[in-house]
Amino acid sequence: MRNHTLLTDLYQLTMMNGYFENNSHEDTVIFDLFFRKNPCNNSFTIIAGIEQVIDYIENLGFTEEDIQYLRSLNLFGEAFLDMLKQFTFTGTIYGVQEGSIMFPHEPILRVKASVLQAQLIETALLNMINFQSLIATKASRIVEAAKGDPVFEFGLRRAQGPDAGIYGARAAVIGGCVATSNILAGKLFDLPVVGTHAHSWIQKFDSELEAFRAYAKAYPDKCLLLVDTYDTLKSGIPNALTVFNELREKGYEPKGIRIDSGDLAYISKQARRMLDDAGYEKVGIVASSDLDEDTIDSLKLQGASINSWGVGTNLITSKDCPALGGVYKLSAVEKSGTLIPKMKLSDNPGKITNPGYKKVIRIYEAENNRAQADLILLEEEEIDTTKPLTIFHPLYTWKKKTFSNYKVREMLMPIYEDGKLVYPRKTVNEIRAYVRQELSTLWPEYKRLNRPQLYKVDLSQKLWSLKHNMIQSLKKDKKDDE
Amino acid sequence: MRNHTLLTDLYQLTMMNGYFENNSHEDTVIFDLFFRKNPCNNSFTIIAGIEQVIDYIENLGFTEEDIQYLRSLNLFGEAFLDMLKQFTFTGTIYGVQEGSIMFPHEPILRVKASVLQAQLIETALLNMINFQSLIATKASRIVEAAKGDPVFEFGLRRAQGPDAGIYGARAAVIGGCVATSNILAGKLFDLPVVGTHAHSWIQKFDSELEAFRAYAKAYPDKCLLLVDTYDTLKSGIPNALTVFNELREKGYEPKGIRIDSGDLAYISKQARRMLDDAGYEKVGIVASSDLDEDTIDSLKLQGASINSWGVGTNLITSKDCPALGGVYKLSAVEKSGTLIPKMKLSDNPGKITNPGYKKVIRIYEAENNRAQADLILLEEEEIDTTKPLTIFHPLYTWKKKTFSNYKVREMLMPIYEDGKLVYPRKTVNEIRAYVRQELSTLWPEYKRLNRPQLYKVDLSQKLWSLKHNMIQSLKKDKKDDE
Repeated sequence: MRNHTLLTDLYQLTMMNGYFENNSHEDTVIFDLFFRKNPCNNSFTIIAGIEQVIDYIENLGFTEEDIQYLRSLNLFGEAFLDMLKQFTFTGTIYGVQEGSIMFPHEPILRVKASVLQAQLIETALLNMINFQSLIATKASRIVEAAKGDPVFEFGLRRAQGPDAGIYGARAAVIGGCVATSNILAGKLFDLPVVGTHAHSWIQKFDSELEAFRAYAKAYPDKCLLLVDTYDTLKSGIPNALTVFNELREKGYEPKGIRIDSGDLAYISKQARRMLDDAGYEKVGIVASSDLDEDTIDSLKLQGASINSWGVGTNLITSKDCPALGGVYKLSAVEKSGTLIPKMKLSDNPGKITNPGYKKVIRIYEAENNRAQADLILLEEEEIDTTKPLTIFHPLYTWKKKTFSNYKVREMLMPIYEDGKLVYPRKTVNEIRAYVRQELSTLWPEYKRLNRPQLYKVDLSQKLWSLKHNMIQSLKKDKKDDE
Repeated sequence: MRNHTLLTDLYQLTMMNGYFENNSHEDTVIFDLFFRKNPCNNSFTIIAGIEQVIDYIENLGFTEEDIQYLRSLNLFGEAFLDMLKQFTFTGTIYGVQEGSIMFPHEPILRVKASVLQAQLIETALLNMINFQSLIATKASRIVEAAKGDPVFEFGLRRAQGPDAGIYGARAAVIGGCVATSNILAGKLFDLPVVGTHAHSWIQKFDSELEAFRAYAKAYPDKCLLLVDTYDTLKSGIPNALTVFNELREKGYEPKGIRIDSGDLAYISKQARRMLDDAGYEKVGIVASSDLDEDTIDSLKLQGASINSWGVGTNLITSKDCPALGGVYKLSAVEKSGTLIPKMKLSDNPGKITNPGYKKVIRIYEAENNRAQADLILLEEEEIDTTKPLTIFHPLYTWKKKTFSNYKVREMLMPIYEDGKLVYPRKTVNEIRAYVRQELSTLWPEYKRLNRPQLYKVDLSQKLWSLKHNMIQSLKKDKKDDE
């Protein structure tokens, strides 16, 4: 594991030094990590990267080399650098379980720590959660489009650097892919890995038939042939059938063919017919050519005869929406043991933050366990589920909804308590299963690929009032300035 | 440095094992790494990531743990795994100098190695070159739009994982950014780093004025204040001016203000007037709010008063074109000491590869050192620059151009010779300077952000004939199949 202590923006260090000079670096603050918009016009986001956040925090610490480098910048005093040598994370972090489905403006991670510590970790936390949540969500869309067919992650060569390939493969499997082509990711996270051969294998031999025979010889019981190097229907499939027949004579059943170019709807249907006619009804067809959820959806509608899908660039980069815009905002400052709520104003109402020490509950219909709405509320608020619960839209406040037969679940759980890791570490396989369970609590209308139903995220009356009073008071201050 | 030997697609290993079983794993092959399309509608691509490719190859080698993992996949024989334990790279790689400007279909890296070695490294080479070249090119577009103003890379929090932040910052500086906010990238590659404070700094204090004063106290000689936390024109700038005046009284000159939201054209002009009226003509204005080359271009046209630009998400992810589609294609196989050219056919003419052992020359006008065209030719071909040179369009072959007063430069240079590194390693600073020199050889028409002039990349007569004969012969084979 690499030490990523310096994986941060310089302004975190200049602020840390500023607080140190100001002797307020030990002040306790609360930061919320949240996003304002789901990626790819989805109605939800699958949160991933929590395990990497933990690895990062477990390894926090400035090396002597780090200190020397910081000294060379001529920005920091020696007393500050000395203090950094002793740096360890002693804060408290609450957050969602990795794989949770979350919605805009909800705290995903809630950091309570000295301002020194809370600032240092901001950038790395955002980097890790933003990327993996993006890819897990994108993968879930592609898997949704594939309607139960296996989806493979094939994007390493087009990923934005090695980590993007490695953590992207992890997030893709969390989001629902069944395997990756990336061996290192497979090794690191115990992910299923898949792969057969490339066009170069075919070209390397004197003929396609010879290449197929050599592959079948090496992998008689796992023979899957790439059939589009020269001409899928006129050369690839006829040659594949020759080799499949030879395999059968030796007592092996071939596994499938892969098509990586051309009109996948037309070619896959023709290929299916040719395979069936030759008695290979069980041989599968893998497609892999610039696929994404929309193409898969369209191929399904066209009746393409494809059994599994290899998705590369569009998944690993989330090509149509390559960034999740997670932010990390100060929501409270402790003064003499009391938390003073803080917020940021903006001309853009969507950028006004929610103040205070907050939590999130999810409201489920008791009968069928379907998620109905989320409520952001202050930490000290409790919901009495024996009584009906009325929530209201934070903007159109006359829009109300009352639940009577419901259950609630707190979404944030302790990850660190006073610097001690208290979160039960999870394997990718466990996280993946949890995602499936999470998805089962959503009505299909929220999972629709295009124009999904908007999920309700409301504020408690207490939080709503706090926010609106603070806006008015901050606005009043500004008028006084005028 | 991490060992990335397993950073590859599983099919590379299954093919390697297949060649081993077939006893052809030592056969020498040639692979070309190239791309088919410039990113972001640019007319050229700045190649970056060569140093990381070298780091990767220098560290190639399977650990005992890697071998154990591969064994656990039940795909490979023990003899093959035994051989992997001894794996070292002994091939020859020619490639462009990092920072070179290259064009579609030109070999960027040319690998001559045993098929075993050449396959293993494919995926990592593509991953590294694709990402860094993408970001260097995107950065050069943004820098071009900024017309000489400094551009800072601020994207770490939105980058696709830690490496994307680190290598993205490196590539951004190669492409022309003057600095990054990413400290770890700064440390690793000796990049200039920048950063002051965030909105949270302002919120943390009881008032904006108090926050500005504390910042000025900590950094009296480098005071740059973020003025948009509450209201830029009514609160931020008036408070900043108060603090600037206090600094001046103490003998310090303030450095600038940063604006991170709102209408940057309007606000920057108002801000400039307020600063000037107060006697701070030299105080700079930094803008940073969802910027890219188009926004910067538009702000410039609107007369925005901005002196430097902080660019985040849109640069570090190359948001509108987040992948460069580099590929790695077999172009020749050695048989009994002779190179047999190989190619891949496709229904899409743009995907038909160029066969043979090739090189690239750039033709410059002798008088002014401007690049005129590139020519892809066979390795054995020589250009006699004392004679006129006529090139022709590979598709519209009647379109010809003759050069008489010209110079040529070979673009590919040796990086590895028989496994030995022979490339002079370069610092980012040297690469960055070389990029500037490369850009100076391009007419402005090629550097236009929108609809740039297309740069000519032609094939030599010999290569063109080889390719067309091969196409006909491969097509004939297929007809025979019918």
